[in-house]
Amino acid sequence: MITSLSNAKVKQVVLWQTKAKERKKERVFLIEGIKLFEEAPISWIREAYLTADAVKRLEEKSALKEKLSQISWEEVSDEVMEKMSDTQTPQGILTVVRCPEYSAKELLVKPDGLYLVLEDIQDPGNLGTMMRTGEGAGITAVIMNKTTVDIFNPKTIRATMGSIFRVPFVIVDDLEAFLPEMKKNNIRIFAAHLNGKNYYAGTSFQGKTAFLIGNEGNGLSKEITLLADEKIKIPMEGKLESLNAGVAGALLLYEAKRQRSIW
Amino acid sequence: MITSLSNAKVKQVVLWQTKAKERKKERVFLIEGIKLFEEAPISWIREAYLTADAVKRLEEKSALKEKLSQISWEEVSDEVMEKMSDTQTPQGILTVVRCPEYSAKELLVKPDGLYLVLEDIQDPGNLGTMMRTGEGAGITAVIMNKTTVDIFNPKTIRATMGSIFRVPFVIVDDLEAFLPEMKKNNIRIFAAHLNGKNYYAGTSFQGKTAFLIGNEGNGLSKEITLLADEKIKIPMEGKLESLNAGVAGALLLYEAKRQRSIW
Repeated sequence: MITSLSNAKVKQVVLWQTKAKERKKERVFLIEGIKLFEEAPISWIREAYLTADAVKRLEEKSALKEKLSQISWEEVSDEVMEKMSDTQTPQGILTVVRCPEYSAKELLVKPDGLYLVLEDIQDPGNLGTMMRTGEGAGITAVIMNKTTVDIFNPKTIRATMGSIFRVPFVIVDDLEAFLPEMKKNNIRIFAAHLNGKNYYAGTSFQGKTAFLIGNEGNGLSKEITLLADEKIKIPMEGKLESLNAGVAGALLLYEAKRQRSIW
Repeated sequence: MITSLSNAKVKQVVLWQTKAKERKKERVFLIEGIKLFEEAPISWIREAYLTADAVKRLEEKSALKEKLSQISWEEVSDEVMEKMSDTQTPQGILTVVRCPEYSAKELLVKPDGLYLVLEDIQDPGNLGTMMRTGEGAGITAVIMNKTTVDIFNPKTIRATMGSIFRVPFVIVDDLEAFLPEMKKNNIRIFAAHLNGKNYYAGTSFQGKTAFLIGNEGNGLSKEITLLADEKIKIPMEGKLESLNAGVAGALLLYEAKRQRSIW
Protein backbone atom coordinates (compact mmCIF):
# COMPACT_ATOMS: atom_id res chain seq x y z
CA MET A 1 0.00 0.00 0.00
CA ILE A 2 1.25 3.47 -0.89
CA THR A 3 0.99 5.82 2.08
CA SER A 4 3.72 8.38 1.33
CA LEU A 5 2.82 11.58 -0.47
CA SER A 6 6.36 11.72 -1.84
CA ASN A 7 6.13 8.29 -3.46
CA ALA A 8 7.32 8.52 -7.08
CA LYS A 9 4.06 7.12 -8.47
CA VAL A 10 2.00 9.63 -6.51
CA LYS A 11 4.13 12.47 -7.83
CA GLN A 12 3.75 11.12 -11.34
CA VAL A 13 -0.04 10.96 -11.12
CA VAL A 14 -0.20 14.51 -9.75
CA LEU A 15 1.88 15.68 -12.73
CA TRP A 16 -0.47 13.91 -15.13
CA GLN A 17 -3.44 15.38 -13.33
CA THR A 18 -2.24 18.94 -13.66
CA LYS A 19 -0.06 19.11 -16.78
CA ALA A 20 -1.36 18.31 -20.26
CA LYS A 21 2.23 18.20 -21.52
CA GLU A 22 3.11 15.40 -19.11
CA ARG A 23 0.05 13.41 -20.15
CA LYS A 24 0.94 13.85 -23.81
CA LYS A 25 4.52 12.72 -23.22
CA GLU A 26 3.32 9.39 -21.87
CA ARG A 27 0.14 9.28 -23.97
CA VAL A 28 -2.09 8.62 -20.96
CA PHE A 29 -5.07 10.24 -19.32
CA LEU A 30 -6.72 9.86 -15.92
CA ILE A 31 -10.24 8.86 -15.02
CA GLU A 32 -11.83 8.91 -11.58
CA GLY A 33 -14.68 6.99 -10.06
CA ILE A 34 -16.19 3.55 -10.36
CA LYS A 35 -18.49 4.42 -13.25
CA LEU A 36 -15.73 5.48 -15.63
CA PHE A 37 -13.58 2.54 -14.49
CA GLU A 38 -16.48 0.26 -15.34
CA GLU A 39 -16.75 1.76 -18.83
CA ALA A 40 -13.03 1.82 -19.64
CA PRO A 41 -12.00 -0.98 -22.01
CA ILE A 42 -9.56 -3.30 -20.22
CA SER A 43 -6.99 -3.02 -22.98
CA TRP A 44 -6.85 0.75 -22.45
CA ILE A 45 -6.11 0.52 -18.73
CA ARG A 46 -2.48 0.94 -17.75
CA GLU A 47 -2.82 0.94 -13.96
CA ALA A 48 -5.22 1.92 -11.20
CA TYR A 49 -5.01 3.25 -7.64
CA LEU A 50 -7.68 2.41 -5.08
CA THR A 51 -8.40 3.18 -1.45
CA ALA A 52 -9.26 0.26 0.84
CA ASP A 53 -12.86 1.40 0.86
CA ALA A 54 -13.03 1.46 -2.95
CA VAL A 55 -11.52 -2.03 -3.18
CA LYS A 56 -14.28 -3.25 -0.88
CA ARG A 57 -16.99 -1.57 -2.93
CA LEU A 58 -15.61 -2.91 -6.23
CA GLU A 59 -15.34 -6.44 -4.93
CA GLU A 60 -19.05 -6.44 -4.15
CA LYS A 61 -19.79 -6.48 -7.89
CA SER A 62 -18.53 -9.61 -9.60
CA ALA A 63 -17.92 -7.92 -12.97
CA LEU A 64 -15.79 -5.26 -11.33
CA LYS A 65 -13.94 -7.79 -9.17
CA GLU A 66 -13.14 -9.72 -12.34
CA LYS A 67 -11.96 -6.54 -14.09
CA LEU A 68 -9.73 -5.66 -11.15
CA SER A 69 -8.13 -9.10 -11.32
CA GLN A 70 -7.14 -8.47 -14.93
CA ILE A 71 -5.34 -5.18 -14.46
CA SER A 72 -2.37 -3.83 -12.57
CA TRP A 73 -3.43 -1.87 -9.49
CA GLU A 74 -2.23 -0.71 -6.08
CA GLU A 75 -3.92 0.24 -2.85
CA VAL A 76 -3.30 3.77 -1.56
CA SER A 77 -4.15 5.55 1.68
CA ASP A 78 -7.05 8.01 1.75
CA GLU A 79 -4.54 10.82 2.11
CA VAL A 80 -2.63 9.72 -1.00
CA MET A 81 -5.89 9.47 -2.96
CA GLU A 82 -6.83 12.98 -1.91
CA LYS A 83 -3.46 14.19 -3.18
CA MET A 84 -3.80 12.38 -6.50
CA SER A 85 -7.43 13.27 -7.15
CA ASP A 86 -8.69 16.19 -9.21
CA THR A 87 -12.02 16.30 -7.39
CA GLN A 88 -12.95 17.71 -4.01
CA THR A 89 -14.57 14.48 -2.90
CA PRO A 90 -12.44 11.69 -4.39
CA GLN A 91 -14.34 8.53 -5.22
CA GLY A 92 -11.47 6.31 -4.13
CA ILE A 93 -10.44 4.99 -7.53
CA LEU A 94 -8.16 6.66 -10.04
CA THR A 95 -7.28 4.88 -13.27
CA VAL A 96 -4.44 5.65 -15.68
CA VAL A 97 -5.64 5.00 -19.22
CA ARG A 98 -3.70 4.87 -22.50
CA CYS A 99 -4.82 7.45 -25.07
CA PRO A 100 -6.57 5.83 -28.02
CA GLU A 101 -5.38 6.48 -31.55
CA TYR A 102 -7.81 6.51 -34.43
CA SER A 103 -7.05 6.55 -38.13
CA ALA A 104 -8.53 9.65 -39.77
CA LYS A 105 -8.33 7.87 -43.13
CA GLU A 106 -10.50 4.99 -41.94
CA LEU A 107 -13.00 7.30 -40.28
CA LEU A 108 -13.48 9.45 -43.39
CA VAL A 109 -14.44 6.56 -45.66
CA LYS A 110 -17.33 5.33 -43.49
CA PRO A 111 -20.62 5.29 -45.39
CA ASP A 112 -23.17 7.86 -44.18
CA GLY A 113 -20.46 9.39 -42.00
CA LEU A 114 -21.56 12.11 -39.60
CA TYR A 115 -18.85 14.39 -38.20
CA LEU A 116 -18.48 17.32 -35.85
CA VAL A 117 -15.47 19.51 -36.66
CA LEU A 118 -14.39 21.81 -33.84
CA GLU A 119 -12.26 24.92 -34.18
CA ASP A 120 -10.71 26.33 -31.00
CA ILE A 121 -13.38 25.20 -28.54
CA GLN A 122 -12.09 26.51 -25.20
CA ASP A 123 -14.43 25.15 -22.56
CA PRO A 124 -13.71 21.58 -21.36
CA GLY A 125 -17.37 21.13 -20.45
CA ASN A 126 -18.49 22.08 -23.97
CA LEU A 127 -16.04 19.67 -25.57
CA GLY A 128 -17.05 16.83 -23.25
CA THR A 129 -20.73 17.54 -23.81
CA MET A 130 -20.24 17.45 -27.58
CA MET A 131 -18.58 14.02 -27.34
CA ARG A 132 -21.53 12.85 -25.22
CA THR A 133 -24.15 14.30 -27.58
CA GLY A 134 -22.17 12.91 -30.51
CA GLU A 135 -22.50 9.40 -29.10
CA GLY A 136 -26.23 9.90 -28.64
CA ALA A 137 -26.64 11.07 -32.23
CA GLY A 138 -24.55 8.19 -33.55
CA ILE A 139 -21.68 10.34 -34.80
CA THR A 140 -18.83 8.75 -36.79
CA ALA A 141 -16.10 10.93 -35.27
CA VAL A 142 -15.31 14.27 -33.69
CA ILE A 143 -12.50 16.16 -35.45
CA MET A 144 -10.80 19.01 -33.59
CA ASN A 145 -7.85 21.28 -34.24
CA LYS A 146 -4.93 21.19 -31.84
CA THR A 147 -5.79 24.58 -30.35
CA THR A 148 -9.08 23.17 -29.10
CA VAL A 149 -9.00 22.51 -25.34
CA ASP A 150 -7.29 19.25 -24.36
CA ILE A 151 -9.74 16.38 -24.69
CA PHE A 152 -7.87 14.54 -21.92
CA ASN A 153 -8.40 17.39 -19.45
CA PRO A 154 -10.08 15.84 -16.36
CA LYS A 155 -13.05 18.21 -16.72
CA THR A 156 -13.55 17.21 -20.35
CA ILE A 157 -13.35 13.53 -19.46
CA ARG A 158 -15.99 13.94 -16.74
CA ALA A 159 -18.31 15.81 -19.09
CA THR A 160 -18.09 13.04 -21.72
CA MET A 161 -19.82 10.68 -19.27
CA GLY A 162 -17.89 7.75 -20.77
CA SER A 163 -18.22 8.75 -24.42
CA ILE A 164 -14.46 9.27 -24.43
CA PHE A 165 -14.23 5.45 -24.64
CA ARG A 166 -16.74 5.08 -27.45
CA VAL A 167 -16.67 8.10 -29.77
CA PRO A 168 -13.71 8.14 -32.18
CA PHE A 169 -11.90 11.46 -32.38
CA VAL A 170 -9.00 12.95 -34.29
CA ILE A 171 -6.88 15.95 -33.35
CA VAL A 172 -5.54 17.59 -36.50
CA ASP A 173 -2.57 19.95 -36.80
CA ASP A 174 -4.07 22.00 -39.56
CA LEU A 175 -7.82 22.19 -40.10
CA GLU A 176 -7.39 24.15 -43.33
CA ALA A 177 -5.47 21.25 -44.80
CA PHE A 178 -7.81 18.62 -43.36
CA LEU A 179 -11.13 19.95 -44.64
CA PRO A 180 -10.16 19.38 -48.32
CA GLU A 181 -9.38 15.78 -47.32
CA MET A 182 -12.93 15.48 -46.01
CA LYS A 183 -14.32 16.90 -49.25
CA LYS A 184 -12.32 14.37 -51.29
CA ASN A 185 -14.19 11.74 -49.31
CA ASN A 186 -17.51 13.23 -50.44
CA ILE A 187 -18.32 14.69 -47.07
CA ARG A 188 -20.49 17.79 -47.35
CA ILE A 189 -19.28 20.44 -44.91
CA PHE A 190 -21.76 22.79 -43.25
CA ALA A 191 -20.77 25.83 -41.20
CA ALA A 192 -23.15 26.95 -38.47
CA HIS A 193 -23.09 30.67 -39.15
CA LEU A 194 -25.15 33.79 -38.42
CA ASN A 195 -25.02 34.67 -42.12
CA GLY A 196 -26.22 31.27 -43.26
CA LYS A 197 -28.61 31.31 -46.21
CA ASN A 198 -30.87 28.47 -45.12
CA TYR A 199 -32.07 27.30 -41.75
CA TYR A 200 -30.61 24.02 -40.58
CA ALA A 201 -33.95 22.28 -40.32
CA GLY A 202 -34.72 23.02 -43.95
CA THR A 203 -31.43 21.57 -45.22
CA SER A 204 -30.80 17.94 -46.14
CA PHE A 205 -28.14 16.05 -44.19
CA GLN A 206 -28.81 12.69 -45.81
CA GLY A 207 -25.37 12.13 -47.35
CA LYS A 208 -21.98 12.16 -45.61
CA THR A 209 -22.14 15.29 -43.47
CA ALA A 210 -19.81 17.38 -41.31
CA PHE A 211 -20.76 20.32 -39.10
CA LEU A 212 -18.21 23.02 -38.30
CA ILE A 213 -18.50 24.54 -34.82
CA GLY A 214 -16.34 27.49 -33.86
CA ASN A 215 -14.87 29.03 -30.73
CA GLU A 216 -17.31 30.10 -28.00
CA GLY A 217 -16.43 33.78 -28.14
CA ASN A 218 -15.40 34.35 -31.75
CA GLY A 219 -17.22 31.71 -33.77
CA LEU A 220 -15.57 30.14 -36.81
CA SER A 221 -12.54 31.84 -38.37
CA LYS A 222 -12.95 33.33 -41.85
CA GLU A 223 -10.46 30.86 -43.31
CA ILE A 224 -12.38 27.84 -42.06
CA THR A 225 -15.80 29.28 -42.91
CA LEU A 226 -14.64 29.78 -46.51
CA LEU A 227 -13.89 26.07 -46.79
CA ALA A 228 -17.48 25.07 -45.95
CA ASP A 229 -19.71 23.91 -48.78
CA GLU A 230 -22.65 25.72 -47.26
CA LYS A 231 -23.41 28.10 -44.39
CA ILE A 232 -26.54 27.24 -42.44
CA LYS A 233 -28.17 29.15 -39.62
CA ILE A 234 -29.99 28.28 -36.46
CA PRO A 235 -32.94 30.64 -35.98
CA MET A 236 -32.86 32.73 -32.82
CA GLU A 237 -35.53 34.84 -31.20
CA GLY A 238 -34.75 37.72 -28.86
CA LYS A 239 -31.46 39.57 -28.84
CA LEU A 240 -29.06 36.63 -28.70
CA GLU A 241 -25.92 36.72 -30.80
CA SER A 242 -25.35 32.99 -30.62
CA LEU A 243 -26.21 29.78 -28.85
CA ASN A 244 -23.84 27.83 -26.63
CA ALA A 245 -21.44 25.84 -28.85
CA GLY A 246 -22.52 22.52 -27.34
CA VAL A 247 -26.17 23.38 -27.89
CA ALA A 248 -25.58 24.42 -31.52
CA GLY A 249 -23.71 21.17 -32.17
CA ALA A 250 -26.51 19.14 -30.56
CA LEU A 251 -29.25 20.78 -32.64
CA LEU A 252 -27.37 20.06 -35.88
CA LEU A 253 -26.42 16.48 -35.02
CA TYR A 254 -29.93 15.57 -33.89
CA GLU A 255 -31.49 17.19 -36.96
CA ALA A 256 -29.21 14.97 -39.08
CA LYS A 257 -30.27 12.00 -36.96
CA ARG A 258 -33.94 12.94 -37.31
CA GLN A 259 -33.65 13.11 -41.09
CA ARG A 260 -31.77 9.82 -41.32
CA SER A 261 -33.90 7.78 -38.92
CA ILE A 262 -37.23 6.12 -39.12
CA TRP A 263 -38.32 7.04 -35.61
CA MET B 1 -13.06 57.01 -5.25
CA ILE B 2 -13.11 53.92 -3.05
CA THR B 3 -9.59 52.65 -2.35
CA SER B 4 -10.00 50.88 0.98
CA LEU B 5 -10.66 47.15 1.02
CA SER B 6 -12.46 47.59 4.33
CA ASN B 7 -14.93 50.12 2.93
CA ALA B 8 -18.48 49.08 3.91
CA LYS B 9 -19.67 48.99 0.29
CA VAL B 10 -16.79 46.76 -0.74
CA LYS B 11 -17.56 44.37 2.08
CA GLN B 12 -21.23 44.37 1.10
CA VAL B 13 -20.45 43.52 -2.55
CA VAL B 14 -18.11 40.70 -1.49
CA LEU B 15 -20.93 39.28 0.65
CA TRP B 16 -23.35 39.44 -2.27
CA GLN B 17 -20.74 37.86 -4.51
CA THR B 18 -20.24 34.87 -2.27
CA LYS B 19 -23.48 34.34 -0.36
CA ALA B 20 -26.80 33.59 -2.07
CA LYS B 21 -28.57 34.29 1.21
CA GLU B 22 -27.22 37.84 1.34
CA ARG B 23 -28.28 38.45 -2.26
CA LYS B 24 -31.77 37.15 -1.50
CA LYS B 25 -32.10 39.35 1.58
CA GLU B 26 -31.57 42.48 -0.53
CA ARG B 27 -33.10 41.02 -3.72
CA VAL B 28 -30.09 41.93 -5.84
CA PHE B 29 -27.61 40.17 -8.05
CA LEU B 30 -24.25 41.13 -9.54
CA ILE B 31 -23.12 41.33 -13.12
CA GLU B 32 -19.62 41.94 -14.39
CA GLY B 33 -18.25 43.36 -17.60
CA ILE B 34 -19.29 45.96 -20.13
CA LYS B 35 -21.42 43.62 -22.23
CA LEU B 36 -23.81 42.67 -19.43
CA PHE B 37 -23.89 46.30 -18.25
CA GLU B 38 -24.89 47.28 -21.77
CA GLU B 39 -27.72 44.74 -21.77
CA ALA B 40 -29.06 45.47 -18.27
CA PRO B 41 -32.27 47.54 -18.32
CA ILE B 42 -31.60 50.89 -16.64
CA SER B 43 -34.55 50.48 -14.29
CA TRP B 44 -32.99 47.27 -12.94
CA ILE B 45 -29.64 48.87 -12.07
CA ARG B 46 -29.17 49.82 -8.44
CA GLU B 47 -25.54 50.92 -8.50
CA ALA B 48 -22.27 50.24 -10.31
CA TYR B 49 -18.57 50.22 -9.47
CA LEU B 50 -15.95 51.03 -12.09
CA THR B 51 -12.18 51.32 -12.30
CA ALA B 52 -10.72 54.45 -13.89
CA ASP B 53 -9.82 52.40 -16.95
CA ALA B 54 -13.37 51.08 -17.33
CA VAL B 55 -14.82 54.60 -17.00
CA LYS B 56 -12.56 55.67 -19.87
CA ARG B 57 -13.60 52.73 -22.04
CA LEU B 58 -17.30 53.28 -21.36
CA GLU B 59 -17.13 56.97 -22.14
CA GLU B 60 -15.81 56.18 -25.61
CA LYS B 61 -19.25 54.84 -26.55
CA SER B 62 -21.97 57.47 -26.45
CA ALA B 63 -24.76 55.03 -25.53
CA LEU B 64 -22.76 53.74 -22.58
CA LYS B 65 -21.74 57.24 -21.50
CA GLU B 66 -25.40 58.20 -21.55
CA LYS B 67 -26.34 55.11 -19.54
CA LEU B 68 -23.66 55.87 -16.96
CA SER B 69 -25.06 59.38 -16.53
CA GLN B 70 -28.45 57.93 -15.64
CA ILE B 71 -27.36 55.60 -12.86
CA SER B 72 -25.67 55.82 -9.50
CA TRP B 73 -22.02 54.71 -9.68
CA GLU B 74 -18.65 55.08 -7.97
CA GLU B 75 -15.07 54.78 -9.06
CA VAL B 76 -12.94 52.16 -7.28
CA SER B 77 -9.23 51.33 -7.34
CA ASP B 78 -8.00 48.32 -9.31
CA GLU B 79 -7.27 46.60 -6.02
CA VAL B 80 -10.82 47.13 -4.76
CA MET B 81 -12.24 45.82 -8.06
CA GLU B 82 -10.10 42.70 -7.76
CA LYS B 83 -11.49 42.15 -4.28
CA MET B 84 -15.10 42.63 -5.38
CA SER B 85 -14.89 40.61 -8.57
CA ASP B 86 -15.81 36.97 -8.99
CA THR B 87 -13.53 36.51 -12.01
CA GLN B 88 -9.78 36.04 -12.24
CA THR B 89 -9.38 38.88 -14.71
CA PRO B 90 -11.93 41.53 -13.66
CA GLN B 91 -13.30 43.61 -16.51
CA GLY B 92 -13.37 46.77 -14.40
CA ILE B 93 -17.10 47.16 -14.05
CA LEU B 94 -19.36 45.50 -11.53
CA THR B 95 -23.07 46.32 -11.45
CA VAL B 96 -25.57 45.64 -8.69
CA VAL B 97 -28.92 44.77 -10.25
CA ARG B 98 -32.36 44.40 -8.67
CA CYS B 99 -33.88 40.94 -9.05
CA PRO B 100 -36.85 40.98 -11.41
CA GLU B 101 -40.22 39.63 -10.31
CA TYR B 102 -42.55 37.99 -12.77
CA SER B 103 -46.15 37.01 -12.26
CA ALA B 104 -46.61 33.29 -12.78
CA LYS B 105 -50.30 33.90 -13.36
CA GLU B 106 -49.66 36.27 -16.26
CA LEU B 107 -47.07 33.99 -17.80
CA LEU B 108 -49.33 30.94 -17.76
CA VAL B 109 -52.14 32.58 -19.71
CA LYS B 110 -49.98 33.57 -22.71
CA PRO B 111 -51.29 32.07 -25.94
CA ASP B 112 -49.02 29.42 -27.48
CA GLY B 113 -46.94 29.48 -24.31
CA LEU B 114 -43.72 27.44 -24.34
CA TYR B 115 -42.18 26.58 -20.97
CA LEU B 116 -39.20 24.76 -19.55
CA VAL B 117 -39.81 23.37 -16.07
CA LEU B 118 -36.65 22.49 -14.16
CA GLU B 119 -36.42 20.16 -11.18
CA ASP B 120 -33.26 20.31 -9.09
CA ILE B 121 -30.83 21.37 -11.82
CA GLN B 122 -27.50 21.60 -9.99
CA ASP B 123 -25.01 23.02 -12.47
CA PRO B 124 -25.00 26.83 -12.83
CA GLY B 125 -23.70 26.49 -16.39
CA ASN B 126 -26.59 24.22 -17.35
CA LEU B 127 -29.18 26.58 -15.89
CA GLY B 128 -27.61 29.61 -17.60
CA THR B 129 -27.38 27.75 -20.90
CA MET B 130 -31.05 26.78 -20.68
CA MET B 131 -32.04 30.43 -20.17
CA ARG B 132 -29.92 31.33 -23.21
CA THR B 133 -31.34 28.54 -25.38
CA GLY B 134 -34.80 29.43 -24.13
CA GLU B 135 -34.42 32.96 -25.45
CA GLY B 136 -33.25 31.60 -28.80
CA ALA B 137 -36.25 29.30 -29.04
CA GLY B 138 -38.66 32.08 -28.04
CA ILE B 139 -39.67 30.54 -24.72
CA THR B 140 -42.43 32.13 -22.64
CA ALA B 141 -40.80 31.41 -19.29
CA VAL B 142 -38.48 29.11 -17.38
CA ILE B 143 -40.05 27.64 -14.24
CA MET B 144 -37.76 26.11 -11.62
CA ASN B 145 -38.19 24.67 -8.16
CA LYS B 146 -36.39 26.31 -5.28
CA THR B 147 -33.88 23.48 -4.94
CA THR B 148 -32.60 24.24 -8.44
CA VAL B 149 -29.23 26.04 -8.31
CA ASP B 150 -29.49 29.79 -7.65
CA ILE B 151 -30.23 31.60 -10.90
CA PHE B 152 -28.42 34.66 -9.53
CA ASN B 153 -25.20 32.72 -9.00
CA PRO B 154 -22.45 34.63 -10.88
CA LYS B 155 -21.66 31.54 -12.98
CA THR B 156 -25.31 31.16 -13.99
CA ILE B 157 -25.55 34.83 -14.89
CA ARG B 158 -22.44 34.58 -17.10
CA ALA B 159 -23.78 31.49 -18.86
CA THR B 160 -27.08 33.22 -19.69
CA MET B 161 -25.15 35.67 -21.92
CA GLY B 162 -27.69 38.36 -21.10
CA SER B 163 -30.82 36.22 -21.33
CA ILE B 164 -31.26 36.80 -17.59
CA PHE B 165 -32.59 40.25 -18.59
CA ARG B 166 -34.96 39.00 -21.25
CA VAL B 167 -36.31 35.55 -20.37
CA PRO B 168 -39.03 35.58 -17.70
CA PHE B 169 -38.56 33.02 -14.95
CA VAL B 170 -40.39 31.87 -11.86
CA ILE B 171 -38.99 30.06 -8.85
CA VAL B 172 -41.71 27.96 -7.26
CA ASP B 173 -41.79 26.56 -3.75
CA ASP B 174 -43.59 23.40 -4.67
CA LEU B 175 -43.47 22.00 -8.19
CA GLU B 176 -46.04 19.33 -7.36
CA ALA B 177 -48.55 22.04 -6.54
CA PHE B 178 -47.56 24.22 -9.49
CA LEU B 179 -47.90 21.68 -12.30
CA PRO B 180 -51.68 21.31 -11.78
CA GLU B 181 -51.88 25.12 -12.12
CA MET B 182 -50.19 24.80 -15.48
CA LYS B 183 -52.64 22.11 -16.54
CA LYS B 184 -55.57 24.31 -15.58
CA ASN B 185 -54.18 26.80 -18.06
CA ASN B 186 -54.32 24.16 -20.80
CA ILE B 187 -50.58 23.68 -20.91
CA ARG B 188 -49.64 20.16 -22.00
CA ILE B 189 -46.77 18.86 -19.88
CA PHE B 190 -44.16 16.55 -21.39
CA ALA B 191 -41.51 14.74 -19.37
CA ALA B 192 -38.24 13.91 -21.12
CA HIS B 193 -37.85 10.34 -19.94
CA LEU B 194 -35.96 7.17 -20.86
CA ASN B 195 -39.24 5.26 -20.67
CA GLY B 196 -41.08 7.63 -22.96
CA LYS B 197 -43.51 5.99 -25.39
CA ASN B 198 -42.93 8.29 -28.35
CA TYR B 199 -39.88 10.08 -29.66
CA TYR B 200 -39.91 13.83 -29.22
CA ALA B 201 -39.63 14.54 -32.94
CA GLY B 202 -42.77 12.51 -33.64
CA THR B 203 -44.87 14.34 -31.06
CA SER B 204 -46.87 17.53 -31.66
CA PHE B 205 -45.96 20.59 -29.60
CA GLN B 206 -48.34 22.94 -31.39
CA GLY B 207 -50.47 23.92 -28.40
CA LYS B 208 -49.33 25.38 -25.10
CA THR B 209 -46.41 23.19 -24.12
CA ALA B 210 -44.14 22.63 -21.13
CA PHE B 211 -41.07 20.38 -20.96
CA LEU B 212 -39.94 18.92 -17.65
CA ILE B 213 -36.17 18.55 -17.26
CA GLY B 214 -34.76 16.79 -14.21
CA ASN B 215 -31.59 16.79 -12.16
CA GLU B 216 -28.33 16.00 -13.98
CA GLY B 217 -27.58 12.89 -11.99
CA ASN B 218 -30.97 11.51 -11.07
CA GLY B 219 -33.36 12.76 -13.74
CA LEU B 220 -36.93 13.67 -12.83
CA SER B 221 -38.39 12.48 -9.54
CA LYS B 222 -41.19 9.93 -9.65
CA GLU B 223 -43.66 12.40 -8.16
CA ILE B 224 -43.04 15.00 -10.85
CA THR B 225 -42.93 12.46 -13.69
CA LEU B 226 -46.37 11.21 -12.63
CA LEU B 227 -47.79 14.69 -13.12
CA ALA B 228 -46.73 14.85 -16.77
CA ASP B 229 -49.40 14.37 -19.44
CA GLU B 230 -46.98 12.40 -21.57
CA LYS B 231 -43.49 10.94 -21.36
CA ILE B 232 -41.39 11.46 -24.49
CA LYS B 233 -37.95 10.15 -25.25
CA ILE B 234 -34.91 11.43 -27.05
CA PRO B 235 -33.35 8.60 -29.08
CA MET B 236 -29.78 7.72 -28.15
CA GLU B 237 -27.25 5.57 -29.91
CA GLY B 238 -24.34 3.93 -28.13
CA LYS B 239 -24.28 3.19 -24.43
CA LEU B 240 -25.36 6.55 -23.08
CA GLU B 241 -27.80 6.70 -20.21
CA SER B 242 -28.77 10.30 -20.82
CA LEU B 243 -27.87 13.52 -22.54
CA ASN B 244 -26.68 16.64 -20.78
CA ALA B 245 -29.71 18.44 -19.26
CA GLY B 246 -29.05 21.62 -21.24
CA VAL B 247 -28.77 19.63 -24.46
CA ALA B 248 -32.00 17.72 -23.79
CA GLY B 249 -33.81 21.00 -23.08
CA ALA B 250 -32.43 22.54 -26.27
CA LEU B 251 -33.53 19.64 -28.47
CA LEU B 252 -37.07 19.80 -27.12
CA LEU B 253 -37.42 23.58 -27.30
CA TYR B 254 -36.06 23.76 -30.83
CA GLU B 255 -38.27 20.90 -31.98
CA ALA B 256 -41.26 22.89 -30.66
CA LYS B 257 -39.91 25.94 -32.46
CA ARG B 258 -39.42 23.95 -35.67
CA GLN B 259 -43.00 22.69 -35.56
CA ARG B 260 -44.42 26.12 -34.84
CA SER B 261 -42.39 28.13 -37.36
CA ILE B 262 -42.51 28.61 -41.06
CA TRP B 263 -38.76 28.61 -41.60
